[in-house]
Amino acid sequence: MQLTLNSPLDMHLHLRDGEMLKSVAPLSAHSFAAAIVMPNLVPPVTTIEAVNAYKARILEAIGEERFEPLMTLFFKESYDFAYLEKAKPYISAIKLYPAGITTNSEGGVGTIDSAALQMTLTAMSDLGIPLLIHGESNGFVMDREKEFIPVYEELATQFPELTIVMEHITTKESVAALERHENLYATITLHHLLITLDEVAGGMLQPHLFCKPIAKRPEDREALLSVALAAHPKVMFGSDSAPHPQHAKEACGCAAGVFTAPIALPALAQLFESHGKLDNLQPFVSDNAQIIYGYTPPEKTVVLEKKPFRVPQKYGDVVPMYAGEELAWRIASVR
Amino acid sequence: MQLTLNSPLDMHLHLRDGEMLKSVAPLSAHSFAAAIVMPNLVPPVTTIEAVNAYKARILEAIGEERFEPLMTLFFKESYDFAYLEKAKPYISAIKLYPAGITTNSEGGVGTIDSAALQMTLTAMSDLGIPLLIHGESNGFVMDREKEFIPVYEELATQFPELTIVMEHITTKESVAALERHENLYATITLHHLLITLDEVAGGMLQPHLFCKPIAKRPEDREALLSVALAAHPKVMFGSDSAPHPQHAKEACGCAAGVFTAPIALPALAQLFESHGKLDNLQPFVSDNAQIIYGYTPPEKTVVLEKKPFRVPQKYGDVVPMYAGEELAWRIASVR
Repeated sequence: MQLTLNSPLDMHLHLRDGEMLKSVAPLSAHSFAAAIVMPNLVPPVTTIEAVNAYKARILEAIGEERFEPLMTLFFKESYDFAYLEKAKPYISAIKLYPAGITTNSEGGVGTIDSAALQMTLTAMSDLGIPLLIHGESNGFVMDREKEFIPVYEELATQFPELTIVMEHITTKESVAALERHENLYATITLHHLLITLDEVAGGMLQPHLFCKPIAKRPEDREALLSVALAAHPKVMFGSDSAPHPQHAKEACGCAAGVFTAPIALPALAQLFESHGKLDNLQPFVSDNAQIIYGYTPPEKTVVLEKKPFRVPQKYGDVVPMYAGEELAWRIASVR
Repeated sequence: MQLTLNSPLDMHLHLRDGEMLKSVAPLSAHSFAAAIVMPNLVPPVTTIEAVNAYKARILEAIGEERFEPLMTLFFKESYDFAYLEKAKPYISAIKLYPAGITTNSEGGVGTIDSAALQMTLTAMSDLGIPLLIHGESNGFVMDREKEFIPVYEELATQFPELTIVMEHITTKESVAALERHENLYATITLHHLLITLDEVAGGMLQPHLFCKPIAKRPEDREALLSVALAAHPKVMFGSDSAPHPQHAKEACGCAAGVFTAPIALPALAQLFESHGKLDNLQPFVSDNAQIIYGYTPPEKTVVLEKKPFRVPQKYGDVVPMYAGEELAWRIASVR
C-alpha cells in the first residue's frame, strides 16, 4: 500500500541554531516542502536582519534539499506598521510567547491585553500577517491552556481580520473555541494525537515525552483526534518538533520538547490508517495550511509505503519519539 | 524556638533491603520512634518467617538506635484465620496492593472485590489487624485514586469492624471519603502536603518529585493540608519515603518515589509553623496513629529547633527532597 503526499508542510517547527540546526534541519527538509520556523533562539529573532541571517543559516544547513523555511518574528509590542510592512516579504507570521512560558521565551510578552498590543496587532491585521500564539497562562500545568482561551477570544473579537493560530493545542476546550471565531485556527502536533499525561507520568517517568503544553487527559486527546482525522479545515499539522541533546532530556530537571520531525509522516500515516482516514492526511498536512496561510509551497512529492520502519535510537545526539520502535509506514521516495 | 515531639511515628515507610536498607534504616531510626514498614520487597513479604527475617535485618541495620519496625504482611487472598492468628504477634497490619500499581507490586491482588477477599478480611477484622491499601485503579493517572474510592467504601461497609487505612492519599475526594465511614483512616505524606503536579512537570521535569500516587491539583493539596494541619483524628503522618539510587531516579524512565525520611520532621515543623499550627504536629505525627492502631510506641523525645538546616545533596546514593536547600528547622536532640 502506498500514499502520495503533495508538498507536506510542518506549520510549527523548532530548528534551533549552530550545530543542532545543522543536525536537524536536513531531517525536516528531506520530507517536508516547507515549515514555519519558530523564532525562539537566544536571543530571539526580533529584526528583519536576524530573520534573514537565520534563514541563510537554515538554507546552508539543508544543502541541496528542496525546502522552504517560512520565517517568523518573535512578537514585540514595538513593531509598528512601517516596520512590519518592510518585514512582510521576509516573514510568514509573528509568534507571540507569554513571557517565560516555554524554552527561550523569557523575552516574551508579560501581560497580554489587546490594548497594549493594539499598534502591532492592527498593523499585522492590515498587512495580513498571521499571529501565532503559544497560549498558556502561568496557572496550574493542566489548566494553563484552558485558562488562556479568553485571551484568544478577546484577540479574535478585537481583530476580526487577523488570522490567529492557536499553536499546538492540547485540550477539548481549544477545539471548541475554534468553532466560535471565524479567524481562530490551530496547529496540532503528532505527539498530542498519540499520548496523554499517562504516557508521560503514568508508569515510569518518560522525559522524552515531556513537552509544553504537557499532554492532557484522554478526552482531550479524543477531541484533537476528531478534528485532525476529519482534516477539519481550521486545523493544520505542526510538529512542534523540538530537539534537545540527550543529556538535557535525561538529566534531572529535563527540558521540554518531543523530537518528531524525521518520523512524523510515517507515524501520521500509521495513525490515520488505523482510523480508516488515510485520505484526510493530505489536507491535514498540507492543503488546510495552504488555504489558511494563502501560501503555495514548492512542489514536492513524498511517497509513503506500508513497510516496517525501525526508528533509530538517535538522530545525532537527539532521541526521537518512537526511538528503537517499529512503525508500519516508511518514506519510500521523495521527488 | 523549640518544639518537642514525643515518639514521632512514620506510619508508611519503605526501607528496602540489602545495601539500601543499611543506608536508609538508620536515618528513619534516628528521628522516629517506630514506623510501619512496607512489605513490597522482591519477593514480597508474605510469610511469618519472611516478616521475622526482614525485621531482624532491619534491627541489624539500625544498630543502637531506639526504634521499633512495625512489620506488615503483603496481602494474599489465601491467608486464613489460623495463619493470621499465628502471625498477629509479629505484624501490625497487612498491606494490599492492586497488582502492578507501584514498585514491586506485581504480585498484588488482581480484582478487588470483597467476596474474593472474604476469608482473609473476615479473619483480619476478627483479629483486629488493620488493612492498609494502596488505593489506585488502572485508569488515567490523575483519576486513579478517585476511581478507587468506591472500592474503599465497599470494603468499609462490608467489614465495619475492620480498620482500613487509605495510604498516602492525594485527593480531595479521599479526604471527603474519610467522613463517610467510621472505619476509614488515612496516611498523608510530607510531599503531598507540599507539591502539586506543577512541581513535578510544570517547569522542567523533576524526577525526584515523581511518585505514586502522582501529586495532584492545587485544590487536592489544600484538602490534604486542611486535615493534616488540623490534626484531624483520622489522619496520620506516613512519609511513604521511598529511596531509589540516584541513577534510577535520573535515568530515562525514572522510578517512582520521593525520599523524605531524614528531612521529614524539620520540613513538617516548617510547614506547620508557617500555618500557625505547630501545636498540631504532635497529634499528626504520633498521637492519632497511636489511637488508630491501639499502639504504644517506645519513649523517644525529639527536640526540633528553629535554626537553619542545609539538606545534604545526597544520603548515600539517594537524593532527598529539598536536596541542597535550607529548611528553617532542624533536629536539635534525640533522647
